[in-house]
Amino acid sequence: MFIYIAGSGAMGCRFGYQLFKAGNKVVLLDKWEDHIQAIKKNGLTITGDKEDNVKIPIMHPEEATEPADLIILFTKAMQLPAMLKDIEQVIGENTKVLCLLNGLGHEDVIKQYIPEKNILMGVTVWTAGLQGPGVAILKATGSVNLQSIDPNGEKEAEKIVDVLNQAGLNVTYDKDVVPSIWRKACVNGTMNSTCALEDCTIGEFFASEDALKVVHTIIHEFVEVGQATGVTLDEKAITDYVMHTAEVAAEHYPSMHQDLVQNHRLTEIDYINGAVARKGDELGIPTPYCHMITELVHAKEHVLGIR
Amino acid sequence: MFIYIAGSGAMGCRFGYQLFKAGNKVVLLDKWEDHIQAIKKNGLTITGDKEDNVKIPIMHPEEATEPADLIILFTKAMQLPAMLKDIEQVIGENTKVLCLLNGLGHEDVIKQYIPEKNILMGVTVWTAGLQGPGVAILKATGSVNLQSIDPNGEKEAEKIVDVLNQAGLNVTYDKDVVPSIWRKACVNGTMNSTCALEDCTIGEFFASEDALKVVHTIIHEFVEVGQATGVTLDEKAITDYVMHTAEVAAEHYPSMHQDLVQNHRLTEIDYINGAVARKGDELGIPTPYCHMITELVHAKEHVLGIR
Repeated sequence: MFIYIAGSGAMGCRFGYQLFKAGNKVVLLDKWEDHIQAIKKNGLTITGDKEDNVKIPIMHPEEATEPADLIILFTKAMQLPAMLKDIEQVIGENTKVLCLLNGLGHEDVIKQYIPEKNILMGVTVWTAGLQGPGVAILKATGSVNLQSIDPNGEKEAEKIVDVLNQAGLNVTYDKDVVPSIWRKACVNGTMNSTCALEDCTIGEFFASEDALKVVHTIIHEFVEVGQATGVTLDEKAITDYVMHTAEVAAEHYPSMHQDLVQNHRLTEIDYINGAVARKGDELGIPTPYCHMITELVHAKEHVLGIR
Repeated sequence: MFIYIAGSGAMGCRFGYQLFKAGNKVVLLDKWEDHIQAIKKNGLTITGDKEDNVKIPIMHPEEATEPADLIILFTKAMQLPAMLKDIEQVIGENTKVLCLLNGLGHEDVIKQYIPEKNILMGVTVWTAGLQGPGVAILKATGSVNLQSIDPNGEKEAEKIVDVLNQAGLNVTYDKDVVPSIWRKACVNGTMNSTCALEDCTIGEFFASEDALKVVHTIIHEFVEVGQATGVTLDEKAITDYVMHTAEVAAEHYPSMHQDLVQNHRLTEIDYINGAVARKGDELGIPTPYCHMITELVHAKEHVLGIR
C-alpha cells in the first residue's frame, strides 16, 4: 500500500518506520528542515527497544505528487489545516485519511477537505520520542482504535486495519471510537496543561490533594460536555483511567511541557481544554476550569513571546 | 508611645524606623535569626530614597515583656496566630492592636486574642524591600487607612492616627475601611497568584487578552463574594484600580512570586484567593477561578517540596 505520513515527528516516524518495514511504500512528509535533511542524508535512525536505520523517503508536504492509498495525519493540532491544504494534490477519490492527532474537533476540519466516506478517526496509546533530527526513540508497545465516520465505510476500513496490523501496530476497528478519543483528550486535559503550567512531571503534579481537585474538576467538565454532545462517557471509568495513566507515566513530562517549557513552542491547548471550554459555551455548560487553564497557558505563551 | 512591630520584615522595618525617628519607643519583633543578629550588631540600615542607620531594639516575640501602647501586626498571614500567642504577655487592657497584613479574614483570628475595643483594622499602600538581613530599602511614599472595629473606638483610634502621622505615615481614619481592605486583596488576588504561577512580572502577565480574562473573572468573584458579605464594592472602580496598579507596578514581581518562585516559601494564597473561595462556598456563590488558582498554587508548593 502507498502511504504518506503527514506530520513525521516522533509518532509519525514510529508509524512510518513500522509500515515501511512491513513492506509498504511509505513517504514521510514534514516541514522541519533539519529533520528532513538528516533523514535524506543518513536515513531514519531508530533507537530504544531496538537499533535500526532505514532509507525512507521524506519531503515537504507540497512536494508530494503521487496520489496515496492512505494518508496518516500526525501533525500538531494547529498545523492540521495547513497540512491538508499542502497535500490536496495527493488526495485521490479513494485515498483514505486516518487522523491520529491528539485532541478534539479535528473531524470538523478534515471534513472540509476529505469526503466522509474516506475519513477514519482514531486514537492511539503508542508513544515515541525524538532524540534529535532523524533519530526516533521507540520504546514499549501500544495500540490503535479507529472507525470510519461513514457507517458504510467499515468494510474498507478493515483493509486499512489489516495493513496496519501487518506492521505490528495492534489496531482494532472500533464501532464507537469517539469515547476513546474523548478519554485520551481527558488524559491530556488533566496532565498536559497542568504540568506545563506547574513545570513538573506527571507524578509530581498528581502527588497533592490540591492537584487532584483540579484533575477531578477538569474530568467532570470533560464528561459533562462530552455527554451533552452525545458521547457516552463514564466519569468513574475515565477517572480510573486518568489515575492509572498518571501512575504509569509518573516520571514523564507530558508533551505540552516539552512544547511550552522546554522548547518555547505554542501548545495544543485550544484542541484539548480549550475545545471543551468552547463546546461547553455553545451548549450552556459551565467549564470554568477548562477556561481558566486555557487562558493561563495562553498567557504563559504570551509571556514567553511565542504568541 | 511604646510600640511593638510584630513581624519586622520589610514593611515592619519601614513602620518601625519611621516611628522610632519620630521619637517613639519602638521594639521590633521577629523570628528570622540572621535579621535579628544583623540589627543587634549593626543597627537597622536604611537605603533607597535616603541613607540612615538606627540603633533600634529587636528581639524574638516571646522575649518581649513590657506591655505596649500599640502593637502593629505585620507578619505573613499564616504566621499571625503564632505571633498573637507569642506576644500575649505584652497585651495589656488598653494595648491597641493595628492589623496591616495583606489578605482577608484576619479580624476573625485577632478577635480570639484581643478585645474588640482595642482592634484597629487597616490597609496600606506603602511599600518596602529588604536588601538582606538588617537592611531595608525604602522608596516612594504611601498611605494608611484604618478603622476601629468597635464603633465607639474612633476617638481613641484618632490618637493612634496622630502618632502615626507624626511619623509621616500619612494615615487617615476611615469610617468604612473594609472596602479598601477588599480592594487591596483583589489587587493581590489578580496579580500575586497569577505572576507566581506564570513566573513573570506584573506587566508581562497583564499584557495578554487571555490573562485579562483571568483578571476580570477573579475581580468579579471577589466583588460577588464581598457584596454578599455586606461590603460595598464597585466592580468597575476596582477594575480601574487593579489596572492602574498593574501599570504602575508593571516592572515588579509581586511578593508571592518572591515567596514561591524566588525563595521557595509557602504563600499567603489561603488568605487571598483562598479566602474568597471559602467564603463563596459558605454563601453558595461560585468562585471557580479563585478555587482553581488556590489549588494550583498549593500544588506548586507541593511540587517544590515546601508543603
